[in-house]
Amino acid sequence: MAARAEKWWGWGFDDRSIPLESRPGLHAYLRRALELPEGDVLRVPDSTKLAVAGTRLSEFDLAMFRQTASEDRMTTADLDRLTHSVGKSYRDLLRLRLGQLPPPPDLVIYPETDDEIRAILDRCAERRIGVVPFGGGTTVVGGVEIADVARAHVVLDLRRMDRVLSVDPISLLATVQAGIRGPSLEEGLKAHRLTAGHFPQSFEFSTLGGWIASRAAGALSNRYGKIEDIVAGLRLITPTGVYEFRGRPRHAMGSDLLSLVVGSEGTLGVISHATIRVHPLPEVRAFDSFLFRSFGEGLEALRRLAQDGIAPHMAYLFDEDETRLLFVAAGGPTGQGLFRDFGIRHLERRGFSFERGSLLFVAYEGTHGVVRDLQNLGRGYCKVAASVGAAPAKQWTTDRFESPYLRDSLIDHRIMVDTVETATVWSNLERLHKASREAILNAISATGVPGIVGCHVSHVYSEGASLYFTWMAPQKRNEELAQYDAVKAAAIRGFLANGGLLSHHHGIGLDHARYLQEAIGRDAYLLMRELKRIVDPEGIMNPGKLFPVSG
Amino acid sequence: MAARAEKWWGWGFDDRSIPLESRPGLHAYLRRALELPEGDVLRVPDSTKLAVAGTRLSEFDLAMFRQTASEDRMTTADLDRLTHSVGKSYRDLLRLRLGQLPPPPDLVIYPETDDEIRAILDRCAERRIGVVPFGGGTTVVGGVEIADVARAHVVLDLRRMDRVLSVDPISLLATVQAGIRGPSLEEGLKAHRLTAGHFPQSFEFSTLGGWIASRAAGALSNRYGKIEDIVAGLRLITPTGVYEFRGRPRHAMGSDLLSLVVGSEGTLGVISHATIRVHPLPEVRAFDSFLFRSFGEGLEALRRLAQDGIAPHMAYLFDEDETRLLFVAAGGPTGQGLFRDFGIRHLERRGFSFERGSLLFVAYEGTHGVVRDLQNLGRGYCKVAASVGAAPAKQWTTDRFESPYLRDSLIDHRIMVDTVETATVWSNLERLHKASREAILNAISATGVPGIVGCHVSHVYSEGASLYFTWMAPQKRNEELAQYDAVKAAAIRGFLANGGLLSHHHGIGLDHARYLQEAIGRDAYLLMRELKRIVDPEGIMNPGKLFPVSG
Repeated sequence: MAARAEKWWGWGFDDRSIPLESRPGLHAYLRRALELPEGDVLRVPDSTKLAVAGTRLSEFDLAMFRQTASEDRMTTADLDRLTHSVGKSYRDLLRLRLGQLPPPPDLVIYPETDDEIRAILDRCAERRIGVVPFGGGTTVVGGVEIADVARAHVVLDLRRMDRVLSVDPISLLATVQAGIRGPSLEEGLKAHRLTAGHFPQSFEFSTLGGWIASRAAGALSNRYGKIEDIVAGLRLITPTGVYEFRGRPRHAMGSDLLSLVVGSEGTLGVISHATIRVHPLPEVRAFDSFLFRSFGEGLEALRRLAQDGIAPHMAYLFDEDETRLLFVAAGGPTGQGLFRDFGIRHLERRGFSFERGSLLFVAYEGTHGVVRDLQNLGRGYCKVAASVGAAPAKQWTTDRFESPYLRDSLIDHRIMVDTVETATVWSNLERLHKASREAILNAISATGVPGIVGCHVSHVYSEGASLYFTWMAPQKRNEELAQYDAVKAAAIRGFLANGGLLSHHHGIGLDHARYLQEAIGRDAYLLMRELKRIVDPEGIMNPGKLFPVSG
Repeated sequence: MAARAEKWWGWGFDDRSIPLESRPGLHAYLRRALELPEGDVLRVPDSTKLAVAGTRLSEFDLAMFRQTASEDRMTTADLDRLTHSVGKSYRDLLRLRLGQLPPPPDLVIYPETDDEIRAILDRCAERRIGVVPFGGGTTVVGGVEIADVARAHVVLDLRRMDRVLSVDPISLLATVQAGIRGPSLEEGLKAHRLTAGHFPQSFEFSTLGGWIASRAAGALSNRYGKIEDIVAGLRLITPTGVYEFRGRPRHAMGSDLLSLVVGSEGTLGVISHATIRVHPLPEVRAFDSFLFRSFGEGLEALRRLAQDGIAPHMAYLFDEDETRLLFVAAGGPTGQGLFRDFGIRHLERRGFSFERGSLLFVAYEGTHGVVRDLQNLGRGYCKVAASVGAAPAKQWTTDRFESPYLRDSLIDHRIMVDTVETATVWSNLERLHKASREAILNAISATGVPGIVGCHVSHVYSEGASLYFTWMAPQKRNEELAQYDAVKAAAIRGFLANGGLLSHHHGIGLDHARYLQEAIGRDAYLLMRELKRIVDPEGIMNPGKLFPVSG
C-alpha cells in the first residue's frame, strides 16, 4: 500500500501538522491562563531508539499463521507492532513521548478475506492467543491496547478490507467491508450520488468496523443517527461461528441481535462487513450561528428543538468557557478570525458577549425545500440569541478536523489536553455540566497547576443530550502520567456520581473497563460477560476491553 | 376490578359489536365476491358448556402459590383459564367457536409487585412450571398459547400493574408499570399534557409490556417510532435475576442489552415496568388523503418522502384491492360514505378511480409550524395523485379501532378473515407484494373457494417499508382450521421465499416459531436460544414461543 504515511507518535498524516504558534490568539491565551513557561518542549523520541519488546510468538506459531494469510500481509517489525499497540488518546501519545511504551502485540496481520479471518481466529483459539481487531487505531479509550500481558496477541488490521461491495440505490443501502475509512467510504458512495452521513472527528482515519464496534457518533447525528441507527446488518466472525445479523428494515423477529454487536468493541468477534443506510447527497447544506447570553439559554432552545422533532442536523452548543476558547482561538476581539464581522461592541450593548456567552453552531442538509423550512423553523427557536451568520458555523465545521493535529502541538508545549464525554437526561444536564466541570477543575487544581475546562453539547435527543468536555493544564514534570490519571479518574467519577453515562460515543475500551459494572449495574454487566462466553469461550477476543482482565 | 366486561370469544368489550349488516355496501360486496350462502352462521358456543380441562396443579402447588400473592388475585376458574389460553387471532377465535379449545393454563395470578413476580418465578423454576406473561391478550401469533402440554403453566396477568410511576416533564420520560393499557397510559400522560404516541390497532386493550415484548408498532410510528424507539429503559424479572436495562439517552457502554428484551415475547422474563419517551400533546393534527392511479405510484411517493427525511407521521397506502374494499365499505359510488363528496365522475375523467387506484392516508401532528411545513412539503411529493381532502384519512383513523369488532361479525358469517404482515427493502417491495398476494390467492383457491386479498403499507423507513395483508374467503365447512392453516402457511412461505421478513410488528409467538430459524439464520437462531438459557436455564419462561418446544 503506497498510502500517505502516518505519524506513529501523533495524529494523522506525517506531512501535516498544526503548530500552536499558527494560532497566536490561542497561544497567548494559553500561555497566560496556564502560566506556561517559555521554550519548554516535550520532544518526540527517535523511534529507532525505542525499546520495543520482541515478539513472543515462536517460529512454530509464526509458521502456523503463515498458513492463514500471505506472508507479505503479516509483520513482526518493531515499528509496526508499536503503532498497533496504542490508540490516539492523550494518555497513549504521552506514553509514547515519555518512552513508556505499552506492551506491543506479537504479530500484525492484514487479512483480506473472511476465510482468512476465520482461519486466524481458529488458530488463536487453539493456542489461546489474544486477538485485537484493529480499524483506524483512533480509539481514545485504550480500545486496542494489550491488557492481558500474560498471553501473546495478534492484531488483525482490517484496513485492506476496504471495498464497497454493493449498493442498492433504491433502498439506500450499501454493503461495505469493515476496514474502509471515512473518505474512501464517502468516495465510493459519491459515485452513486449517496452519502453515509457519518462524520466523527476521526472521520479521515477511523473505519466502518471501528465505528460500529465503538458505538460512534458523527457531527450530523441528529439527521443520520448514531452508528447504531446507520447500520442495517453485518457479518460477525467469532471464534465459534459466523453470524449474519439484520436489524433493518425494522422487524418483530425476536431479540435484536445486531444491537449486541454494536458497541462490542472487538470482544465478541471481528466485524467483516456491514450493510449501512445511505442517503442522497444533499442538494444543499445550510449553516447558522447563534450567540446566546448563557449556556442555559442555549440548552433550553436545543431541548425545545429536539423535543418538537426538528433538531438541527448538526448542533454544537458551547458553554461559556468553550465559547471563549473558540473566540480567542479565532483571534479574539482584535483578530482577523471567525467573529471579526459581527460588530462585537454592538452585540455587547445588547448583552451578548463572545467572552461570557454561549455559541450554537447548526447545520442542515438535504433537499432545498426541507432545509429551507427546517432552518426557518429553527431560527424561530433561537430568537433570544443574536444571530451571527452562517460563516462561523461553516468555518468551524471544516476546522474541526484540525483539532487533533493541534493537540500534538499542545503536547509539544507540555500541555495536558484531553476530552471526556457523557450524556444525561435534560432535567439533569445543567447539574451534570456544573458538577463535572468542577470535578475536573478541582482535580487539576489538586495537582498544583491551573486549568481550563470547556464543554459542548453535540448530540441531542428528545430525552437528553451529550456533554463533551475538553480540559487543558500544564503538565507536571516527571509526574505527567499520574497527573493525567488523577484528573481523568476525577472526571469519570464526576460523571457517575452525578447521573452521567460512562460514555456517549467514545466507548469503554481498557481505560473505562473498571467503571463499567458501576455504570450499567452488576446484573447487566454479568449478563454481557456471559454473552461473550457464548461466542468466545476461550476469551481470546480483545481481552481486557469492556471487562477488566481480572473481572 | 369493576372493569367493563370483555368478550371471552371475540374482540373487545361485551357491550360493543359491529355487525356486517351495518355496512350494507361491504356486506353486498362480500356476498357477491365470496359467493356467501344466505343465513349460514357460525355461532358462539355457550361458555358454560365448553369442556375446559381442569387445573393440573396439586393442592400442594396451589398452596405454594398462595404464599406468593393474595388469594383473591389468583384463580383456577374455568372461564378465567379459558380466556387466558388464547389471543385474538382468527385461529384463536375460530377454535373457540368450534369448541376446539387450546390447552388451558392451570392457574392465573394477577401480581401487584415485583416481589410477587420474583416469588412466583422462583417457585415455578423450582417445580419447572411454565410461566406465561400476559398483557392485553391481543396477540395474533399465539403469543400466550400453551405449547408445552407436558408441563403445568401459570399465567401472570400483569394488568393490575397499571400505574404511571413517575414523569420527568423536562426530559419527556415516563416510568410506567408494564400492565397498563393504551387508554390508561394516555390518560395518565394527558394530565402532564404529554402523549406516548403509540397507537397500534389493539391500543384499547394491549399493554405497554406486551408492546415491548412483541416489538409493536403504532399508526404514528413514522413520528414516534416503533416501540423499540419509544422504550428508554426497563426492568426485566427473570428466573435468575432482576435486570435494569437503559438504552436512552444513547450511550457507548457496550452492547445494547435493552434490545435483547424488546421482542423477547416473554421468553426471557417478565417486564415489570419501563421508562418510555413521551412527547408534548400535539397542538394540532392534520390529515391529507390522496388517490394515486396505482399502488406503484403511491409507493414511489412514499419512498421519496421517507428518504428525504419527511415521512408523514402516519402514512397508510392501500393497494388497489384494499382501496376498492375501503370504497365499497364506505358505501361505494352510490353510498353516503367517506368518498361521497369527491366528484367521482370528475376524478375518473382525470384517470383516478377508487375502484382501480390506490389511496394514501397521511397525518401529521405536533406544533402548528412544524405540521404546516411538513404537510406542505408532503403535498409536493404527491402531485401525481388527486387530493381528496382531509376527511377520508381522518375518518379512517377513528374507524380503524372498529375493524376487529367487525371481524367477529365476519366470522359469524362464516368468513375466514386474517391479516399477515412483513417488511422488506424498497427495491424488493413491489415484487414481494405481488408474490405474496398471489401466494395467498392461490392457497385460498386451492381450498376450492374464492378469495379477496388487500394490502397496505403502514410503516416506512429510508430503506424499506412494511406490507400488511388482509384476506377473506368463505370458510370450508368442517375443514375450517385446516383450510386456514394452509392459507396462512402459504402466506408465510410467500414472504420467506421472496425476501420478506417473518414479521414486522406482530411477532413470532407460537404460530411463527417453526419459521424463525429459516428467517434469521441458523447461527443467529441458536445464539438467541443460548441467550435465553443464561437467564432462564430451566426453560420455564413462555415455553414454545420464538423457539418450538422440540427445538
